[in-house]
Amino acid sequence: MKNSFGSSVSVTLFGESHGGAVGAVLDGLAPGLPVDRERIARQLALRRPQGNISTARVEEDRFEIVSGVFEGRTTGTPLCLLIPNENTRSRDYAATRALARPGHADYTAYIKYHGYEDYRGGGHFSGRVTAALVAAGAVAIGALRNRGIAIGTHIARCAGVPDRAFSEDALGEELELLNALPFAVLDAAAGERMREAIAAAAAEGDSVGGVLETAVLGLPAGVGEPWFDTLEGLLAHGLFSIPGIKGVQFGAGFDLAEARGSAFNDAFYAEGGAIKTRTNRNGGINGGISNGMPILFRCAVKPTPSIFRPQETVNFQTGENTVLALKGRHDPAIIHRARVVVDSVAAIALCDALAQRWGTDWIGGGTCAADC
Amino acid sequence: MKNSFGSSVSVTLFGESHGGAVGAVLDGLAPGLPVDRERIARQLALRRPQGNISTARVEEDRFEIVSGVFEGRTTGTPLCLLIPNENTRSRDYAATRALARPGHADYTAYIKYHGYEDYRGGGHFSGRVTAALVAAGAVAIGALRNRGIAIGTHIARCAGVPDRAFSEDALGEELELLNALPFAVLDAAAGERMREAIAAAAAEGDSVGGVLETAVLGLPAGVGEPWFDTLEGLLAHGLFSIPGIKGVQFGAGFDLAEARGSAFNDAFYAEGGAIKTRTNRNGGINGGISNGMPILFRCAVKPTPSIFRPQETVNFQTGENTVLALKGRHDPAIIHRARVVVDSVAAIALCDALAQRWGTDWIGGGTCAADC
Amino acid sequence: MKNSFGSSVSVTLFGESHGGAVGAVLDGLAPGLPVDRERIARQLALRRPQGNISTARVEEDRFEIVSGVFEGRTTGTPLCLLIPNENTRSRDYAATRALARPGHADYTAYIKYHGYEDYRGGGHFSGRVTAALVAAGAVAIGALRNRGIAIGTHIARCAGVPDRAFSEDALGEELELLNALPFAVLDAAAGERMREAIAAAAAEGDSVGGVLETAVLGLPAGVGEPWFDTLEGLLAHGLFSIPGIKGVQFGAGFDLAEARGSAFNDAFYAEGGAIKTRTNRNGGINGGISNGMPILFRCAVKPTPSIFRPQETVNFQTGENTVLALKGRHDPAIIHRARVVVDSVAAIALCDALAQRWGTDWIGGGTCAADC
Amino acid sequence: MKNSFGSSVSVTLFGESHGGAVGAVLDGLAPGLPVDRERIARQLALRRPQGNISTARVEEDRFEIVSGVFEGRTTGTPLCLLIPNENTRSRDYAATRALARPGHADYTAYIKYHGYEDYRGGGHFSGRVTAALVAAGAVAIGALRNRGIAIGTHIARCAGVPDRAFSEDALGEELELLNALPFAVLDAAAGERMREAIAAAAAEGDSVGGVLETAVLGLPAGVGEPWFDTLEGLLAHGLFSIPGIKGVQFGAGFDLAEARGSAFNDAFYAEGGAIKTRTNRNGGINGGISNGMPILFRCAVKPTPSIFRPQETVNFQTGENTVLALKGRHDPAIIHRARVVVDSVAAIALCDALAQRWGTDWIGGGTCAADC
Repeated sequence: MKNSFGSSVSVTLFGESHGGAVGAVLDGLAPGLPVDRERIARQLALRRPQGNISTARVEEDRFEIVSGVFEGRTTGTPLCLLIPNENTRSRDYAATRALARPGHADYTAYIKYHGYEDYRGGGHFSGRVTAALVAAGAVAIGALRNRGIAIGTHIARCAGVPDRAFSEDALGEELELLNALPFAVLDAAAGERMREAIAAAAAEGDSVGGVLETAVLGLPAGVGEPWFDTLEGLLAHGLFSIPGIKGVQFGAGFDLAEARGSAFNDAFYAEGGAIKTRTNRNGGINGGISNGMPILFRCAVKPTPSIFRPQETVNFQTGENTVLALKGRHDPAIIHRARVVVDSVAAIALCDALAQRWGTDWIGGGTCAADC
Repeated sequence: MKNSFGSSVSVTLFGESHGGAVGAVLDGLAPGLPVDRERIARQLALRRPQGNISTARVEEDRFEIVSGVFEGRTTGTPLCLLIPNENTRSRDYAATRALARPGHADYTAYIKYHGYEDYRGGGHFSGRVTAALVAAGAVAIGALRNRGIAIGTHIARCAGVPDRAFSEDALGEELELLNALPFAVLDAAAGERMREAIAAAAAEGDSVGGVLETAVLGLPAGVGEPWFDTLEGLLAHGLFSIPGIKGVQFGAGFDLAEARGSAFNDAFYAEGGAIKTRTNRNGGINGGISNGMPILFRCAVKPTPSIFRPQETVNFQTGENTVLALKGRHDPAIIHRARVVVDSVAAIALCDALAQRWGTDWIGGGTCAADC
Repeated sequence: MKNSFGSSVSVTLFGESHGGAVGAVLDGLAPGLPVDRERIARQLALRRPQGNISTARVEEDRFEIVSGVFEGRTTGTPLCLLIPNENTRSRDYAATRALARPGHADYTAYIKYHGYEDYRGGGHFSGRVTAALVAAGAVAIGALRNRGIAIGTHIARCAGVPDRAFSEDALGEELELLNALPFAVLDAAAGERMREAIAAAAAEGDSVGGVLETAVLGLPAGVGEPWFDTLEGLLAHGLFSIPGIKGVQFGAGFDLAEARGSAFNDAFYAEGGAIKTRTNRNGGINGGISNGMPILFRCAVKPTPSIFRPQETVNFQTGENTVLALKGRHDPAIIHRARVVVDSVAAIALCDALAQRWGTDWIGGGTCAADC
Repeated sequence: MKNSFGSSVSVTLFGESHGGAVGAVLDGLAPGLPVDRERIARQLALRRPQGNISTARVEEDRFEIVSGVFEGRTTGTPLCLLIPNENTRSRDYAATRALARPGHADYTAYIKYHGYEDYRGGGHFSGRVTAALVAAGAVAIGALRNRGIAIGTHIARCAGVPDRAFSEDALGEELELLNALPFAVLDAAAGERMREAIAAAAAEGDSVGGVLETAVLGLPAGVGEPWFDTLEGLLAHGLFSIPGIKGVQFGAGFDLAEARGSAFNDAFYAEGGAIKTRTNRNGGINGGISNGMPILFRCAVKPTPSIFRPQETVNFQTGENTVLALKGRHDPAIIHRARVVVDSVAAIALCDALAQRWGTDWIGGGTCAADC
């Protein structure tokens, strides 16, 4: 099922950049889970463009809960969220309809959909569709919190500027902090340098990328369904759907190409009745199953492909080579906006893994406090 | 479905390291596809341990085609392959049953399966299970070849030693070459240094990891089913099931953290009626859909967790901290054996993506020559 | 995936009787298929209550195409249809919240959803949700017509009154006729007697059921994916989701309990290059695969459970036995409204089976005329 | 996934009548469930031909547990069962390869698989494949028993002879009894008349069909996942895969065409803290969800299509009309053998529905006694 993701808990996406609305159907969550409209609004706000480092297309992201919520709680039946498209300037796109923007899906969509795709503003491939994912993810994040599971992401690198690493001792507080920040870094000074680098690239009509690092705290050991529905596999499947993500790694990931096993293995030890590991280079996952340590993964986000410099390209209707000079509203970086999309997709994947393991009722359910 | 992967074309895995056999059911392939027992045997040989850089447990990997092949061709009904386990020394494992080997699935499997898992030799989590995947993958690779699609993988890095990169002009020949090499490197001298490094680590009771790089040549544009069944998502979902893989990236992947869009975008151009890109930093995929260029991705393979040095660990039945000194037969590196597993999983994922797009008959079908 | 149906072509349903809207997401259809708003409106009209034999709750069924249609044709990306709920009188239901209406889902929903279900008007279990299914089905029916496949259903029995059987020679015309009739019978006089019987039951505060018979003309041989995705299995899976359907049979179905094989087998013969069967007691399906003859199946529709006579029941919150006297607006029969729901579900299931076989592009695609 | 069924608990089938073996992979069952080889053998024995009312092809049905069982209990990883084909006379089939046996899948398989299908003895469409299903089902039946859920089927009608109905008060004992009977009837005298009717048809080279009725006792209320994964939908999807089944109905099913709601609704009442219904015309299912009453359904089994009388047919390779005179070994009735297949499929579907609801561990799990 092409636009659906997940088996026990699933999300289905629909919508185009310049259609009536984008939306999502979230299915399989337990009944009785408080649905916090504030959290949805907050998460949508985190995805919205910010000041001079984002596109000038700013929408308020009014959202509508069409179904699946009754008296403030999930009913257990499908939850449909709708986000109307309000600020669409379709005339920006008609002239360049057949010009393949490098790094975008214009050409591949044209081939796949035989020219019938809604090409305005990227259509179904627009980052706009992630607004629906973020709204659905906000509900999934609430479901995880209800069970004491926290998730958060920081910009680990952007335009060559590194953030400091997650601390081991204060991970919970750091996640809490990150989830309140519009520009998610642990080191404010690093964040300042990143924003400067983004603005500098923007001033030159260029764009930058980076690396997002995500931590999940409180996931119990024993979650994941190998061989194929490993935690890594489920998470990566979802994460690679996010436009611009070209790499996913867990724990130490690609840093291990030079490492030896003796330096890489995570030693187990018991303390106070709990089994832990001294290090966490496996990112909290052994054999595809959570081991009780924090889940850690990183996503590579490519530089936004929409840049304002002339680019060589082709008119795929005529087959002529040409030069593309983009106009319109574009982001010089999306990494600061993408992090909340990463959290959203990951939260849905984790809800699915938990529900595959313990059934739907484990998440949410009647025992949930009103403010969870 | 936990041990099944794929929707239109799917594989289901079963078996444990010390049970009667491991096996796979491959479903959804077209009827009429020649099934080359030689290719299956060759691919299994590439997965087998080699000389002093592998475990001393060598099995001949006799395989049996239980169903789905008639008069040398696929019937279109499920193809079951069985690989009997022949060389099992179960007594190696009983003594350490409750000692969590760092980096392995012993502890997480114990938690997930409540102690009922077959713990001998890693049970269902053993690399042994990949033999079945390789046998099934050999059939899928044949199906791709039947349509002019080639796949191959080289060891891009091992123990800090880099191989040279794929060449653009001779990719087809390079893939052909790699698929015949037991130790898959493009630069033989680099391969020699890698083997020395593996042997050196082995001599110290240690292990090494590395990076595999895969190329797919001949995949038509327009394959992939966004939002969620993107080519990247499908491939990564499958690849992360392979024991030891902790990172997957497409095209330039994580190298883009410092890059700007102007340097990263792949410019399109038309030549001789075909649309191509000047560079291929997106790995042949835009918006989750193939663009006709070679598909390129890399997998991070962690150092084999089984090392012969004393390691701190815990007895998860008693909760006592202890020290583990492994015995038995283990690989100081698996990267040279893992590459054929990567090809196998990728081939199955690609067959699925192709079948989602054009139906089952596109792959294979009655037009196939006897030697494809 | 609980509220999704189909693999290559799928539908996802959402909404409750008294929420903001009901809706459906149809995914996997080919791009370029004309979407006929008139057909959607016509099909919705056929589902609407009629005169004195239906509930007094009549809604205009305004529908909104939220996504997946561009310049009058499918884009190939998910098509979301929304039908606002306009005529809701929620006060009718609060008083009887905990009284299990016999034959309804009140009690089972309460148990499953722990009391968090939207109980107003049956909530997610309301027949209202079928409006979304009918709208999505109208698009699927168009996709089938585009390939020369027609579907239609008549009321074969209602309240003990039989309609005449489908004719063999004029099936195409009969289907065309049925699809234009608000009360779908082949024999107008039989229809008149049925309506009288419904009205008579209504006058006594009672309800009636019946049998629907469906024919599909033009489905090519070779469609269906045994073992498990047989045509019968796919169709039945979907059909049993329709409220009130308690039996599904293909061809002669249950009439064969007394028959012998010699009287039941459908003899094959060749005529003008085509292979046909003399009789069609297998309903056009052998071994789960279409044989090129018309697909024939029948559905048992139970009498509407909402009746106005006092009924023994229980208050499932207090556990007290009590008597229920229904008020509000209810149908004395739903069979004449259900037939278009049957066509809709069947059309979606057939599109899925066709797309599993020949890929997405087979249905619809660029070759489609504007008026198909 | 064509040859797989179920989502949280699933079965994958493979094998052909005259290949090396038939088999099944059962996935998603909890770890720790005792696997009773005796029960598997007993169930296989119930499927085997019996005396003069069955085919002369009798196989011992040796079975092999390839994976997923360790020290007599499920491991929680895929359980593969293999049943070697031992008594195959392939020469019976070659001569009639291109003659479509009426009522069989020969012609449709030829169209679907382009002539590459293994045609010997029906190949993948042979009833032989149900042996694997019965072996897998025996494990699923054990899982249900472990939770106090019993299932059983009787021959409600055969060749026009009715069995007596299930009794309400002694259903548990009746199921126990039926599961021990080779010819499953509640009324031994009726069974005698049925066997006589089968033998009479056999003597004339003919065959008979009938109706199977199944009861499930002890399924808790609240199981089933509407809209689409209703209990009825899941069960019917699986049941229609069984060769020869052409109708499925729940509760009163097709008998309601003449009934009124007032006579058909099942009144609720509370007794001793439990909520029950006075009658069970809905077969224990309301709105697709179990209501705590016994699940009741009936399957129409068509007369065996293999008869020894001359039948008109076509040679689908030459297109010539011809007459078919079957030879070989065939069943004059399969209903008495099919009932254990029905139990098997239903048990797997119920395990899936239970696991969708409460997760994998609910079924089986560590608390299970050795003899459950």
